[in-house]
Amino acid sequence: MNQEQKIVIIGCGAGGGTAAQFAKKQHRKSKILILEKGKYPQYSKCGLPYVLSGVIPKLSDLFEFSEEWFKKAGITLSTNTLVDKIDVNKKKVIAKKDDEIIEESYDLLIISTGSKPFIPPIKNIFLKDKLIDGVFSIRTIDDIKKIQNSVKKGKRAVVIGAGFIGLEIADNLNKIGINVKVVEALPQILLTTFDEDMSKIIYNKISEKIDIILNSTVTKIETKNGKINQLLIKNNKTNIEQKIITDFLILAVGCRPEVSLAKNIGCKIGKTGGIIVNEKCETNIKNIYAVGDCTEFLDFVTKRPVQIGLGSIAVRQAITAGINASGGNYLMPKGVLQTRTSKFFGLEIAGVGPTMDFLISDKIVTATFKGFSLPPYFPGGKPISLKVIADKKSGKIISAQAVGNNAAQRINSFATAILAEMTIEDFKKLETAYSPAVAPTIDIVTIVCDIISKKLKIK
Amino acid sequence: MNQEQKIVIIGCGAGGGTAAQFAKKQHRKSKILILEKGKYPQYSKCGLPYVLSGVIPKLSDLFEFSEEWFKKAGITLSTNTLVDKIDVNKKKVIAKKDDEIIEESYDLLIISTGSKPFIPPIKNIFLKDKLIDGVFSIRTIDDIKKIQNSVKKGKRAVVIGAGFIGLEIADNLNKIGINVKVVEALPQILLTTFDEDMSKIIYNKISEKIDIILNSTVTKIETKNGKINQLLIKNNKTNIEQKIITDFLILAVGCRPEVSLAKNIGCKIGKTGGIIVNEKCETNIKNIYAVGDCTEFLDFVTKRPVQIGLGSIAVRQAITAGINASGGNYLMPKGVLQTRTSKFFGLEIAGVGPTMDFLISDKIVTATFKGFSLPPYFPGGKPISLKVIADKKSGKIISAQAVGNNAAQRINSFATAILAEMTIEDFKKLETAYSPAVAPTIDIVTIVCDIISKKLKIK
Repeated sequence: MNQEQKIVIIGCGAGGGTAAQFAKKQHRKSKILILEKGKYPQYSKCGLPYVLSGVIPKLSDLFEFSEEWFKKAGITLSTNTLVDKIDVNKKKVIAKKDDEIIEESYDLLIISTGSKPFIPPIKNIFLKDKLIDGVFSIRTIDDIKKIQNSVKKGKRAVVIGAGFIGLEIADNLNKIGINVKVVEALPQILLTTFDEDMSKIIYNKISEKIDIILNSTVTKIETKNGKINQLLIKNNKTNIEQKIITDFLILAVGCRPEVSLAKNIGCKIGKTGGIIVNEKCETNIKNIYAVGDCTEFLDFVTKRPVQIGLGSIAVRQAITAGINASGGNYLMPKGVLQTRTSKFFGLEIAGVGPTMDFLISDKIVTATFKGFSLPPYFPGGKPISLKVIADKKSGKIISAQAVGNNAAQRINSFATAILAEMTIEDFKKLETAYSPAVAPTIDIVTIVCDIISKKLKIK
Repeated sequence: MNQEQKIVIIGCGAGGGTAAQFAKKQHRKSKILILEKGKYPQYSKCGLPYVLSGVIPKLSDLFEFSEEWFKKAGITLSTNTLVDKIDVNKKKVIAKKDDEIIEESYDLLIISTGSKPFIPPIKNIFLKDKLIDGVFSIRTIDDIKKIQNSVKKGKRAVVIGAGFIGLEIADNLNKIGINVKVVEALPQILLTTFDEDMSKIIYNKISEKIDIILNSTVTKIETKNGKINQLLIKNNKTNIEQKIITDFLILAVGCRPEVSLAKNIGCKIGKTGGIIVNEKCETNIKNIYAVGDCTEFLDFVTKRPVQIGLGSIAVRQAITAGINASGGNYLMPKGVLQTRTSKFFGLEIAGVGPTMDFLISDKIVTATFKGFSLPPYFPGGKPISLKVIADKKSGKIISAQAVGNNAAQRINSFATAILAEMTIEDFKKLETAYSPAVAPTIDIVTIVCDIISKKLKIK
């Protein structure tokens, strides 16, 4: 690519912003324009819950790259710009910026439209097409601003959804003395990211600090003076209903890919609802890429489509699309690892690879181990529980889940091993770093592999 | 192996003790006898420095497996038993136990004789073949007991040697208010484990808390009433001499493999002074294995012999020798990774793979990066410096060094990548675990690989 090409990017989240940067780095002459519907520059959505507690003092702290920063980098960021339509034949996008209609031609287009929060079907949740006063989704800076107003007034909150975000919000509200309850429709917390046994360990730890109501659905909101006052909650197993008085309700039941623009131009949408992209992050439409939460991709191990909504994946797709759009040649690995982590109520958790629900149980072997971060004789060792799953036939590592000390960095070692398609036999021979004040001679990443290795031999 | 074989193990350090355990696990009918010259059961040598400060309260806390424990496991441990000779033809060992001469036949023998501290040639260091009062090496429980007596009396200490152990001792003495100086003959600390640039970072951090005298050799001990009083220290560059008053002197200038028994029976000794063993941990003599600090092995990357003295390697060799001696078939990886870590003066450091000194500079590419453990917007992120070395031609990762937050676990990911022979291009695509409170979207393990990746492309 020698001529100056124009790359238009729709959306300036982690995906769009990163794609712009890497496109520019790849080819200095690329003209890059980001169209962002919101009024803010690139900010960290994942950091939002921490502003509620003040752990992150101000919302503006979340800004990662300002309009000025982009300008200096030779990238144009146009905020308040909502793309209405993509015209594939004329290679242009039609958008509305501050009520004015604008058209922008493109040589290459990167769709990074993200996702929108799912609103569960609760009676009275809407008042004239808007969420009723006191009910909030959590996806944007404006959502947090609204919640912050309620935080000042109310002292009781209910969070629906015991996934990463729901629990992070609960933790941050709890930190400032809000009485929080978490309502989860399923029989376990963190269903899509942790297996039942590991989820139970996490539940036992955090339920000491917060009420979690499992197997339960909020069915109705009762209001008082046009504002939320009480929730009707039904146990899905017993059908018993209970009422909970609350000052506000936060919805953290996941997101759905925002694909309407892509759908309209014939981008293939996968089973999960995300735009299908290849290893170059190309859609099926020529010159159009897609990255981030609006896409689906194959899981590295199962090769089945997944739609994850992880910032880490969005950023890696964005690097790929950005480089390729600017004439480079860069491939994603043959699937996403779904490496994930969170920390709430002082507990660090992490995982990589599919959970048991996505695997066929007689084709796998599992092992779990609870150990400590330091040798037994060294004071201050912290507990860590580790689970590993391997393929019965090949012995290859499929996934791992960790709860406790340095869960994330330990899981990164497993992620490396999965990416390298290592077997348990090879990985268990890893010389892990050992020193009494840092880690045991045989780290628990090795011990758990030794356990599963024995099971693999019996099979 | 169906018949009952007798496995004799010389030495009950981490190597001997672990070999015994794995030999027994591999084959319940194996008869296992450990002959240990000291009076203590298996204990952690690496934990010794921490008893000085009281971080580990008692020396007996270091005992990992007692004689009773071994007995229950069906393993006989004979302490106070010094092996004098191995008779290869008659397949027996001759030892002295409490002044009585005993003979023990073996079917298989595992030599785990460890290493002995090197005593530098300092004038007046010996008095009648013994270290003069106030001078200590640090290798055994008895060494620590002696030092503990001096700690009570003295308030000034000099440690010779700024390697892992020297600095750990300095830290632990410093913790209890001893005025410690470290004297290092070389121009940098940690020469064999860290490159000059990384060593400098460590030096700058810890020299705020302790005096380190580089390029200097203790040439003479001056005594007063038969006890150490003053040291003569010479700068190796300027030849300028200075005198330092001290109450005691600790020698931490490394160890030499203890191979006299092995040498006498014709075991091949390598360039490094260690017994040469293969991937099964066999010596060149039939039915005789060797493990731990008394051996040398090939480095995974350079395939050159190394003699490391790391507990982590000793234990992994011991697992291998134990299983094989009991009729199993278990191989070490094709070399040792030399994964290593330590923590002193609050600073965690770690490395894996050879340092630059063992590499040919025009065949490698290096990159270093200083980043933080958390995203910039999240408070509490801790600094971490990371260096990575790759092979210019293949792009494979050769080694990595880290200073700061979670250095060890981050280095474990690199160790995994090296063991899997991954290239920088593959490893930099790793999806690392991301969450604002845990780690950045692109962990610095990836950033440093991205930097080196660009250099690899220019080459």
